[in-house]
Parts: sequence; C-alpha cells; structure tokens
Amino acid sequence: MTVKVAINGFGTIGKRVAEAVLKQDDMELVGVTKTRPDYLAKAASLRGLLYVPEEKLQDFEKSGIEVAGTLDELLRKVDVVVDATPGGIGKEYKKVYEKYGVKAIFQGGEKHEVAGFSFSTLCNYEEAHGKQYARVVSCNTTGLLRVLCTLHKEIGIEKVRATIVRRGADPHETKRGPINAIVPNPVTLPSHHGIDVRTVLDIDIATTAVVVPTTIMHLHVLNIVLKENVSKEKILEALEAAPRILVIPSEFSGIKDTAKIIEMARDMGRKRYDLNELAVFEESISVNGKELFLMQAVHQESIVVPENIDAIRALATNVSKEESIRKTDSTLGLVK
Amino acid sequence: MTVKVAINGFGTIGKRVAEAVLKQDDMELVGVTKTRPDYLAKAASLRGLLYVPEEKLQDFEKSGIEVAGTLDELLRKVDVVVDATPGGIGKEYKKVYEKYGVKAIFQGGEKHEVAGFSFSTLCNYEEAHGKQYARVVSCNTTGLLRVLCTLHKEIGIEKVRATIVRRGADPHETKRGPINAIVPNPVTLPSHHGIDVRTVLDIDIATTAVVVPTTIMHLHVLNIVLKENVSKEKILEALEAAPRILVIPSEFSGIKDTAKIIEMARDMGRKRYDLNELAVFEESISVNGKELFLMQAVHQESIVVPENIDAIRALATNVSKEESIRKTDSTLGLVK
Amino acid sequence: MTVKVAINGFGTIGKRVAEAVLKQDDMELVGVTKTRPDYLAKAASLRGLLYVPEEKLQDFEKSGIEVAGTLDELLRKVDVVVDATPGGIGKEYKKVYEKYGVKAIFQGGEKHEVAGFSFSTLCNYEEAHGKQYARVVSCNTTGLLRVLCTLHKEIGIEKVRATIVRRGADPHETKRGPINAIVPNPVTLPSHHGIDVRTVLDIDIATTAVVVPTTIMHLHVLNIVLKENVSKEKILEALEAAPRILVIPSEFSGIKDTAKIIEMARDMGRKRYDLNELAVFEESISVNGKELFLMQAVHQESIVVPENIDAIRALATNVSKEESIRKTDSTLGLVK
Amino acid sequence: MTVKVAINGFGTIGKRVAEAVLKQDDMELVGVTKTRPDYLAKAASLRGLLYVPEEKLQDFEKSGIEVAGTLDELLRKVDVVVDATPGGIGKEYKKVYEKYGVKAIFQGGEKHEVAGFSFSTLCNYEEAHGKQYARVVSCNTTGLLRVLCTLHKEIGIEKVRATIVRRGADPHETKRGPINAIVPNPVTLPSHHGIDVRTVLDIDIATTAVVVPTTIMHLHVLNIVLKENVSKEKILEALEAAPRILVIPSEFSGIKDTAKIIEMARDMGRKRYDLNELAVFEESISVNGKELFLMQAVHQESIVVPENIDAIRALATNVSKEESIRKTDSTLGLVK
Ligand SMILES: NC(=O)c1ccc[n+]([C@@H]2O[C@H](COP(=O)([O-])OP(=O)(O)OC[C@H]3O[C@@H](n4cnc5c(N)ncnc54)[C@H](O)[C@@H]3O)[C@@H](O)[C@H]2O)c1
Ligand SMILES: NC(=O)c1ccc[n+]([C@@H]2O[C@H](COP(=O)([O-])OP(=O)(O)OC[C@H]3O[C@@H](n4cnc5c(N)ncnc54)[C@H](O)[C@@H]3O)[C@@H](O)[C@H]2O)c1
Ligand SMILES: NC(=O)c1ccc[n+]([C@@H]2O[C@H](COP(=O)([O-])OP(=O)(O)OC[C@H]3O[C@@H](n4cnc5c(N)ncnc54)[C@H](O)[C@@H]3O)[C@@H](O)[C@H]2O)c1
Ligand SMILES: NC(=O)c1ccc[n+]([C@@H]2O[C@H](COP(=O)([O-])OP(=O)(O)OC[C@H]3O[C@@H](n4cnc5c(N)ncnc54)[C@H](O)[C@@H]3O)[C@@H](O)[C@H]2O)c1
Repeated sequence: MTVKVAINGFGTIGKRVAEAVLKQDDMELVGVTKTRPDYLAKAASLRGLLYVPEEKLQDFEKSGIEVAGTLDELLRKVDVVVDATPGGIGKEYKKVYEKYGVKAIFQGGEKHEVAGFSFSTLCNYEEAHGKQYARVVSCNTTGLLRVLCTLHKEIGIEKVRATIVRRGADPHETKRGPINAIVPNPVTLPSHHGIDVRTVLDIDIATTAVVVPTTIMHLHVLNIVLKENVSKEKILEALEAAPRILVIPSEFSGIKDTAKIIEMARDMGRKRYDLNELAVFEESISVNGKELFLMQAVHQESIVVPENIDAIRALATNVSKEESIRKTDSTLGLVK
Repeated sequence: MTVKVAINGFGTIGKRVAEAVLKQDDMELVGVTKTRPDYLAKAASLRGLLYVPEEKLQDFEKSGIEVAGTLDELLRKVDVVVDATPGGIGKEYKKVYEKYGVKAIFQGGEKHEVAGFSFSTLCNYEEAHGKQYARVVSCNTTGLLRVLCTLHKEIGIEKVRATIVRRGADPHETKRGPINAIVPNPVTLPSHHGIDVRTVLDIDIATTAVVVPTTIMHLHVLNIVLKENVSKEKILEALEAAPRILVIPSEFSGIKDTAKIIEMARDMGRKRYDLNELAVFEESISVNGKELFLMQAVHQESIVVPENIDAIRALATNVSKEESIRKTDSTLGLVK
Repeated sequence: MTVKVAINGFGTIGKRVAEAVLKQDDMELVGVTKTRPDYLAKAASLRGLLYVPEEKLQDFEKSGIEVAGTLDELLRKVDVVVDATPGGIGKEYKKVYEKYGVKAIFQGGEKHEVAGFSFSTLCNYEEAHGKQYARVVSCNTTGLLRVLCTLHKEIGIEKVRATIVRRGADPHETKRGPINAIVPNPVTLPSHHGIDVRTVLDIDIATTAVVVPTTIMHLHVLNIVLKENVSKEKILEALEAAPRILVIPSEFSGIKDTAKIIEMARDMGRKRYDLNELAVFEESISVNGKELFLMQAVHQESIVVPENIDAIRALATNVSKEESIRKTDSTLGLVK
Repeated sequence: MTVKVAINGFGTIGKRVAEAVLKQDDMELVGVTKTRPDYLAKAASLRGLLYVPEEKLQDFEKSGIEVAGTLDELLRKVDVVVDATPGGIGKEYKKVYEKYGVKAIFQGGEKHEVAGFSFSTLCNYEEAHGKQYARVVSCNTTGLLRVLCTLHKEIGIEKVRATIVRRGADPHETKRGPINAIVPNPVTLPSHHGIDVRTVLDIDIATTAVVVPTTIMHLHVLNIVLKENVSKEKILEALEAAPRILVIPSEFSGIKDTAKIIEMARDMGRKRYDLNELAVFEESISVNGKELFLMQAVHQESIVVPENIDAIRALATNVSKEESIRKTDSTLGLVK
C-alpha cells in the first residue's frame, strides 16, 4: 500500500519534497499546487501533476498551461498533504486540510501550535505515529537537532549555547538583502531558535543569531556542555555513526568554508547541489573536559527534505524509524 | 578509433572537460593531473586516472592517494592534452607538450600567441583541422562569439560595442573580492575582450568591463549595429536556430536575472548547475533600424566545455563541424 | 532677502539638502518634516526645525520628541518646499503645495510630468527662472547630464550609448538585495535613463542598466560619438573646466574603483563621505576619431544636492547660473 | 613638554593615529612614513611630514612628491614611534627602533612577544608607564576588552564565551573576499582572539570566529557568566558609565544592524564615519541569573585609535589614566 501525497506550495522546499516523494516506493505523488504559471508549473503540468487554487484557474488558462484540477480536488485524492507554502500561510490552510480529513505536514515557518507537534526524525520519529498533524522544524532547528539529539542520546547534554550565522536570502531571492551589513536577527536575545529546539528536545539551550550577506548556507557555532568528560574521538564516533551528519574530514583540508562545501556537493553531482546532510567541520571539533565546541553548516534549501519524507511515513504508516531512515537516505543518495 | 586525451590541470575548467571527455564515444580519457591531494584527486585515483607532476609525487605518497604515474608518463600515452592550468602556466607547459609531440589545447588565460590559433566552434571549427595547437577563447569571448558569429553569418555585423559585467570570483574562491565595489577592469578603455574576439572574428568591436561582487555569472550588454535593418523576429529566429544559445523566453517572465537563470539550471538537474549554453534574455532584445541591443548571461565555469570537446575533435580527427556539435551537445544534454 | 525653505521628507536626500540649505546665506531653513521619531527627528527637534504630517502628531507626542508644528503650518511659512519623499509620493503632495501656493522642487523618483520641468544646473538653469515647479533629475541622470551637457556645449554630441551599473541599495537599506546576482533593470531595453536625459537634453541617447550587489556608488560606462574628431586632451580640458566634475588623475593610480573613490572622500573629510562631484576616471578616457569612451562613478546619495540648491535659487530668485554655482560649490566645499 | 611622535606605516590605522596625534596638545607629530607616492603622501608632503624608507627615495623623486627625509632621519627626531605597518612587519622594524632608542607602539597584527606587553587603556594603562614597548591589541580584542574589563571590575567575570563575526576586508580592499560564503577563521577552535584577550586580562575565555562578506564592522556575540546575579539595569549602568562604550538605545529602534550604526556615525559628522566607540545594542542585553548575553559592533578601522593615543602617553609621560582618557576622548569628540 502506498501513501498518496499532495504538495501544497511548490517553491524552494515544495519542489524538493515532491521530487523526494517520487523516489519512494511506498509513496505516490498525486499532485502539487502552484500559484504562478512558470516553467516549474509547465513541467508539473506535463506530468499531469499540476493543481491550482480555484481562484488561480484563470491565470493558468490564460498561460496555456494545462491544469489537472483544483487544490480541493487534489486534497480529496490524498492521504497526506505536505504544506510548503510561505511561513504563516500554512496556518490558514489548516482549516481546508481539516475539511478534507487529510493528514498534514507543516514547515518551520509555521508556529508549533499550528500542528501541536514538532518533528525531527532523529529525536522523536516514534511519537509521530498516528498523529494527524506534524510540523517539520526549520532548517536551522533541524541542523541543531541532528547533532543535539545524537549527543544527548550518546553522552547527555547539560547545556547548549549556540550562535547562528544565517544566510540573508535563498540564491534566487534577488530582492532580499543585506548587501553589506551584519544584522542581529533578532536583536533581542536569546533568539527563538533555542525555543524552537525545545519544542522537540527538552534541554537547557540559548541561541543568538545574525544575518549576513550570503545565499548558500547557514553556519552554526555550537558550544555544548556535556554531562561528562569526553574525548574528541568519542564525539567524532557519535557524529559519524549518526545518519544525515557528514563530518568533513580534516585531511581534505581544502574544505574550510561554506562555499567549498557547496563546491563539494556540486562535484558529487547532487541535484541543485543539495546537501541534505548537516556538514560538521572535523577540524572545528574541540573538547575540553565536558565542554565541546564545533562548527556546522546547514544547506537551508534542502536539509529538511529527509525529515519531510520521514514525517509522511511516521504519520501515515507504521514503518519503523530505522526503516524509514534507511529508505529515505538510500533513495536520496545520502552519504554514509 | 578513439582520441586519447589527457587533462593537465584539474580545476574549475579541467574537471568539467574531463567529465565531458568521458561522455564521448570517440575519445578516451587516459588521465588527469592534479597538484594537490584533495577529494577530487582521490576520486580520480580510484578510477586509475590520477597523474601528477614529478615534483609532487612525494606529497601524494604522504597523503596515501595512489598515483598512476607522472605527467610525463601521461603525455607519452595520449594524442591530445587539454591544458587547463591557471592563466600563464600553459605557456610554460608548451615546451613539455612539444617534447612529447602531443597536440595541445590551451584555455583563455593564455595569450593568443601561445597557440597561434584561437578557436570558437561556431566561428572557425574547420580552420582547426590538422593544427597542432589551439586556444579555446575565454568564457567571456566564447559568449560574445556565439552570438556574434551567428549574427555575422546570418545578417552581417557592422559594429559592436559591448559592456561586460564580470563576476568577481568563481563560487569556491573565497579569498577573492570585491565585497562591496564596482571595479573597472581594466580601467583603461577599451578592454582586451574586444581584441580577443578579433583573434577569431575580424569585426569592428570595442568592449568595456567592470568586475562586481557576484560569483555566479557574467552579464554582457551588447549594442550591435547590423549591416541591414532587421526585425526582432529575425534576430530571435537566428539565435534560436543557433546551437548553444538558450533564449530565455519572456513568457517565463520570472527569469529576469543571473540568479534565476542558475535556479533554472538547478531545476533542470544540470550537474553543478552548469549552463554550457549562453543565456540570452528574450525580453532584452530590442531592435531599432540596424541597431540591436541585448543582454546575455555567461556561466563562466562551464560555457567553454563544449568548445573544448570540439577542439579536441577538430585537431585530432576529421569529424565535421556539424557532426561534432551534434555529438558534443547531445552527450552533454544541451537544450535545443 | 533670503528664500524661506522647507524640506518635506528627511531621508537620504532630504537630510543632505537640509544641511546644504543651512550653509547658504541667501536661504533660511524653516523646517523639515519627518514621519518617524528617530534620532534625526530628535536632532531637528532640538533646533526647532521639526514639523510632522498632522496624522503623525500622536506618534511624536508619545516619543517625547517636541514638534514645532504640522506640515501644513510649515508650508504656510515658506517660499519653496523641497520634496524629498519616496518616489511617487511627491505627486500626491503636489496638491498640498498648490494649496499653499509654495514653489516646489521634486526629485528624480517623480515623473517628469509632476513638475512639467526637469532641471539640471549645467544644462538648463536659466530656463527654470520664474517656474513654480521643477524636478531635479535622478542621481544617474544628473551624473550623465553633467558630462553630456558639458561635452555637447564644448564639442557637440551626435550619439550616446551608455551602460549604467547600479548599486542595489543605499548603505543603510539592509532589507534590499541582491546579495549575489546581476539584475537587468529593466530587462527590456533601452532603459528609462536615456529617456530621462532627454527631458533635459535633446540628443540621441540609449541606455541600458543592471543592478549589482554594492551599496556605495553607481558606475557608468559611456560610449559617445561626438560631432567632430577630438583628442583626449580636449576632452580632459572640457571636463576639468566644468564644475562638479572631478577627474581622478591617473597619477594617483591607486584610485581605480568605486571603493577607492569613497576612501578618498573619507580622507578628504567629507561629511558622510559625500561626493557631490561626479568622478571620472582619467585613465578610462579613450578617444578614437569621433568616438569617446569613459567610465564615471556617481555617489547616489549626494550628487543631486548641489542641483537642489541651485533649483531653489533658480525658482525663487534671479541669481545667475554662474553665481549660483559659485555660491553652492564654495559653501559645500566642492573641489575645483 | 610635548612628546615627539612618528608614525611608521600610514595606512588604515596609521593615518587615523596621525590625525589624532595632531589633535593632542601634549604631542607633536614630527612625521609619517609612506611607501607609495599617492594622494595621502602628497598631503603629508605639503605639510612637511613625509618621510620614506631609504630604498623608496627614488620612487618618490620620480613622482615629484617632496620628501622631508628618510625613516632613519625621522626616528632620530622622535620620542615614540607608532608602528602601523602591516601585521608581521613591525617585528622586523623593532631592531631599527631599538637602534635609535625610541619607544615603540605596535599594533594587533604583531605577536604579543614583539612588545612583551599588550595594552588596552581600560584594563592596564598604569602598567605601561615607563615601558619601552607596548602592543595595542587588535580591533576585536580592544572591543572585547572594553566590555570585559569594565564588567570584571564592576561585577566580576567567571567565564566568557564569544563568537566574532568578522568583516572580510576593509572598505577600500577590493581584492579581498569572500563574496558569497561564511568562512570559519580559524576553523580550529577556539580562536586566537580569546588568547589575545588573556595577554591583557586573565579570565576564562574561549572565542570562535567566522569571516563574512561585509566591509564595515565586526559584530560580537558575547555570552558571559558573571560572578554574581545581576539585573539588566546594573549592566546598562556599568556600560554607560564606562568610557568609549556607546550603548545604542532601544528607543532609537531603527538602529538594529551594523549598517545603521555606520549611518548614525555618518549623520554625526564623524570623519570617515569613524566610530572610536564600541557600540553595544541595548536591546540585545539579556540577563538570566549570572548569565549575560549581548551583541556589540566594532568599527575595525578606528576603534584602536584612542588606545594608541593613550599608549603614547602611558609610555612617554606620567599623565594619569583618567587624565589621558579625558584628553583623548574630548579631542576626538567621543560621545559621553
Ligand atoms: N527556504 C528555506 O531556506 C527554508 C528552509 C526550511 C524551511 N522553510 C519553510 O518552508 C516553508 C516554505 O518556504 P519556501 O522557502 O519553500 O518558500 P517559497 O517562497 O520558496 O515557496 C512557497 C511556495 O508557495 C506558493 N504559495 C504562496 N502562496 C500560496 C498560497 N496561498 N497557496 C498555495 N501556494 C502558495 C508559492 O507560489 C511558492 O511556490 C516556510 O514555512 C519556510 O519557513 C524554508
Ligand atoms: N574559471 C573560469 O571562469 C574560467 C573560464 C574560462 C576559461 N578559464 C581559463 O581556464 C584556465 C584554467 O582556469 P581555472 O579557473 O580552471 O583554474 P583553477 O585554478 O580552477 O584550476 C587550475 C588547476 O591547475 C592546477 N595547477 C596549478 N598549477 C599547476 C601546474 N604548475 N601544473 C599542473 N597543474 C597545475 C591547479 O591545481 C588546479 O587544479 C585558465 O586559463 C583560465 O583563464 C577559466
Ligand atoms: N537615495 C538615492 O540614491 C536617491 C538619489 C537621487 C534621487 N533620489 C530620489 O529622492 C527621493 C527621495 O529618496 P530617498 O532615497 O531620500 O528616500 P528615503 O526613503 O531615504 O527618504 C524618504 C523620506 O521621506 C519620508 N516620508 C515617507 N513617506 C512620507 C510622507 N508620506 N510624507 C512625508 N515624508 C514621508 C521618510 O520618512 C523618509 O525620511 C526619491 O524621489 C528618490 O527617487 C534618491
Ligand atoms: N585594518 C584594521 O581593521 C585593523 C584594525 C586594528 C589593528 N590593525 C593592525 O594595524 C596594523 C596596520 O594595519 P592596517 O590595516 O593599517 O594596514 P594597511 O595595509 O592599511 O597599512 C599599512 C601601511 O604600512 C605601509 N607599509 C607596508 N610595508 C611597509 C614597510 N615595510 N615599511 C613602512 N611602511 C610599510 C603601507 O604602505 C601602508 O600604508 C596591522 O598590525 C593590523 O593588524 C588593523
């Protein structure tokens, strides 16, 4: 039995999740919704996958791009909808999803309360079974949780202080800045990222964040106090054993910044240079007693894709966590 | 019979040409040379393709990456070497190539005189037959010549004035700027790009160039006076009929800048988001009597790859121009 | 007799014009209007110069910043208002200015039709005498006209083709991009800048423009066909003799980009590093027969300030052009 | 009695210190040294202040810029030399300074060992009295120490964890990147900045640093554990009472990023928009028990200027710390 899936909102996140769904043998992509008739809409149309909100039907008719139906018609046909509309819009759509009785997965731009349950595979996959709604936490929170849940389980975390250096815009968003500034975001501390982590993992965490003029990746500086003294080897071992964490080895010492990580993803032939894995700089891992420092880079456009696929399974099937990770990661070609 | 090919210099250009050679059924990639033991070297080593300059043997030994031989050994085994070393280094290597009697293809960072013959497929493929050396002109010159040779042949060009807005660095080059400036480059006018065009196509051309803080593409503003009055339709027809020119249609009106072109290449699944095609904005084409304006974007990292493949054929085989373009473009998956 | 002046809109342009008015012995700054209670409002308030739109009175009361009156009260007291509100807002205010019978000077963000007369000192100062309204053309158009009117008068211009490489945002505008792209703006050619030039100077001109990720200056590449053959010396002489054009000498060959020009303005002690002068790179001036190339840099935030001061005089007094230029330039400390 | 001062290295730091020396009634600027004949050299020459290394005499002769003498001649005439040559060069010059028996002040680009004493006014002014050499710590370390020495004295510091988000290049350095990346610098943690702090203040501190594509300011995120519970008011009070710390008030809530801080410095009429003060965002100050978070911005080009002036006094006179701060800050026009 395959899970029938719809994607509402076919932008940065939506188009990636849609392609990932197509690769799962236990899922069927029934349709995606677009609001603008562009080349992506045309591509979806050619595969019979294009649905649009009713009020947009006319725009698409004018453009000559054929539509398979309306969003409402799409929702009638599916088990799960992945909502990848812009932050705050998902909340509005929840009523529609409720009406059709479909399970829904929201993204990090929505508040925790919209779904009532925040999801991150390595932390709480099992708790999602049977739920009607889940929110896949944001790219930054997903990046933090991959490491934090891993280390918390393996070693135990006492306290986390982290600084998030955020990309200003996604690569295609040419209207957003900053061009030449460092922008505290938020300027009131600590930032919401720590609070977001705590919707999933109950630890002492405080975060701060700035936005800088780059488009390709976020970078996190983590300062973690563990429950016990550890060695760098132990940390390395834990991170290397965990799924979806790519430790960038020191021996390839050329890979020392976010641009070089992306170059590596390009060389690996990743579509759109997506790096679903969190990238941890091995060289940055530094341990002193219980205290750990490390730096990690997050490919904001793609890191949440595996978690979205897992969330579909967790909500709509009884596939186990290990099995879901295995299926997701092998179909997406993740390294490990 | 297949042409045996070596790539000397396995960086931005070299790694792309190497992969393109692997896709040709009439060529064999015998080896590539690297000077630093990084992950690309490791990948080449695993396929038995890694050769290194003699003086680097020790570095590689230390790193544990296995080497198939030295550059000299490699040159003994091949018919053609593609020199993709940094600008100015190719000149030094010419003596070595001469020593082994291999044909050599240089890149745009070398002076015209190094090869004595500058190459651009659409302009002068046939003239290359039988030559010992050729220089594939730079990314900017290649971009200019694709349009200029096409229009010169179809309509006739009287005069070209062009401004080149250049990317400051390739994406992975994080040490190069500028961060916040527009840099005339050169500040003395006209720039060398027009002179470079004239090593291939003898027309009245003068160019100017500035460098700006972006990494993804160059953008050219062309102002062309044609030999006769034309319509926009005629120009469009000529450009759309030409190989390796991608006219970005106005109807997909979202694609209005270099970042959106790259996003399109990412969505198309191009490896490393390479766009071997020159991208011309349809909306920018504007005709008034004999005068034509247009804007085009050049993906600096990949635009010269097809020309390198053609140059190998032109020097080492008697495959015709049309046949070479067909083979190159279909194996590289170019749109048209 | 002094001209009583109000500034409506105390942002990037307004604050500079206000300070320039304060330096004129034939003008009195009666007040400025602000819409937000920030530190600039506080400074204006302390000098008794702060007026606000009626609907904003409450906001200012809450903030504790004392207000001298409403915009309407201010307009009653003045002869001339300089409208430096954001583009398109000036048009709305015109009715208010009409109501109070004050002369008004608009900025380049307004359409020519709003004032019915577009102004640029070196081109048409005299024509402004007695007019009720004038529009000081935009920063880019002002930069173009300084050179074009100078050369047209001295030598005669047959044709101009220019490419404008624009800054993406002013330095303080951290929400605007692009971060990493070159954006044709507009993508349909030619751009409006040439049309804007023609509201002042009737010549054959066509322009193209792109926006790039920098905040400090615009850069123009000019390709001019003159009415007769000229020498580089003749061009240099004409430009050096003209007011408000600063030829950056080749001997100070370090100043080769927009950042170095700004560094020079900083070293000169210019407030806010303003460069009211147009900066022409001497090295870029290149002449071939009747054809001239040159590159010039425009400090977008400040270049229109002298023209605004002259426009006040032209509208409200019968001071001659030469006298106005002399007064404006000496009070602003312009070099020449 | 006035202290006779030379500045060796008239670049970003040197030109600012020279101008600051000129404003001190107890100091005399005898000369500055330049290695390139540019407009700054010309300006210094016109005031009779230009000295050059002997081997550069010819370059200057050719350029027609008159020279007052050689570096050696200059050193014979002075009591103190401020070495503001590029990092690492000062070490070489130490032998020359020794030869002439002049006291010398080095900058943060030199190692602590070069001077054997690292200086920061608020921390250890008194200890400098009578010393032959001092090193004014780097811009980042100076920024950290202003806050840390203040809070350590007022409240007591137990531990500091700080992340430094660094500008990639100074505004005029158009060859340096990155253009579009976040660069861990260093990638091995913790960074040297904490170690540098400890050359002056012996506390438990660990720092991390990344470089980003901006030119105007560094930004620090500080996480401090104090010796006792404090209130936000207490912190504010301490910072507001300290010299050279500018708390950006929340009520001027528009100033929320580094670009807006610079805009404020421009509006204040600071030459070159220099902000000798450390800028702390009031809104960012957050206290929880003993734990304090705050964000502060450092104007890298100018923050060390007051400390250089104080260092001259500390080494060459017996003026007290309070008196030196008072003189320095009032002559430089610092706010407080
Ligand atoms: N971009 C990232 O870096 C990133 C990372 C992780 C999570 N997220 C979250 O994912 C969600 C989607 O973000 P995105 O970056 O993909 O946004 P996006 O703007 O790239 O895509 C949103 C898509 O939704 C469509 N859309 C807009 N309004 C709609 C409506 N009313 N009905 C249906 N479709 C509509 C748009 O056309 C667009 O295709 C947000 O919650 C965001 O916070 C984004
Ligand atoms: N990058 C572009 O945008 C671009 C575009 C078109 C043409 N080109 C031209 O292509 C050529 C190569 O440029 P690139 O960008 O690929 O450079 P690159 O720096 O990315 O790669 C050069 C490669 O040559 C290797 N190398 C360096 N010195 C060597 C030596 N002595 N012997 C052997 N190998 C050596 C380096 O290790 C590196 O792998 C230049 O002529 C350049 O002007 C570059
Ligand atoms: N910034 C530039 O580079 C530049 C250069 C030349 C010309 N201009 C033109 O100058 C004009 C002003 O641009 P700017 O860059 O100074 O804008 P700005 O946004 O910096 O300043 C506009 C000011 O007007 C105020 N304002 C907004 N709405 C108002 C209203 N309804 N009533 C009164 N005041 C209002 C704002 O508070 C702000 O202080 C525009 O026409 C623009 O096109 C700008
Ligand atoms: N720029 C900053 O942000 C900053 C901030 C704080 C401290 N510093 C430190 O201040 C010192 C100077 O840095 P800067 O940024 O002013 O450098 P800079 O490159 O701007 O200036 C250095 C000056 O020294 C001159 N110079 C070079 N070699 C010389 C030589 N052999 N003899 C004499 N003069 C020579 C150069 O011509 C130049 O004028 C360094 O130690 C640096 O680490 C710099």
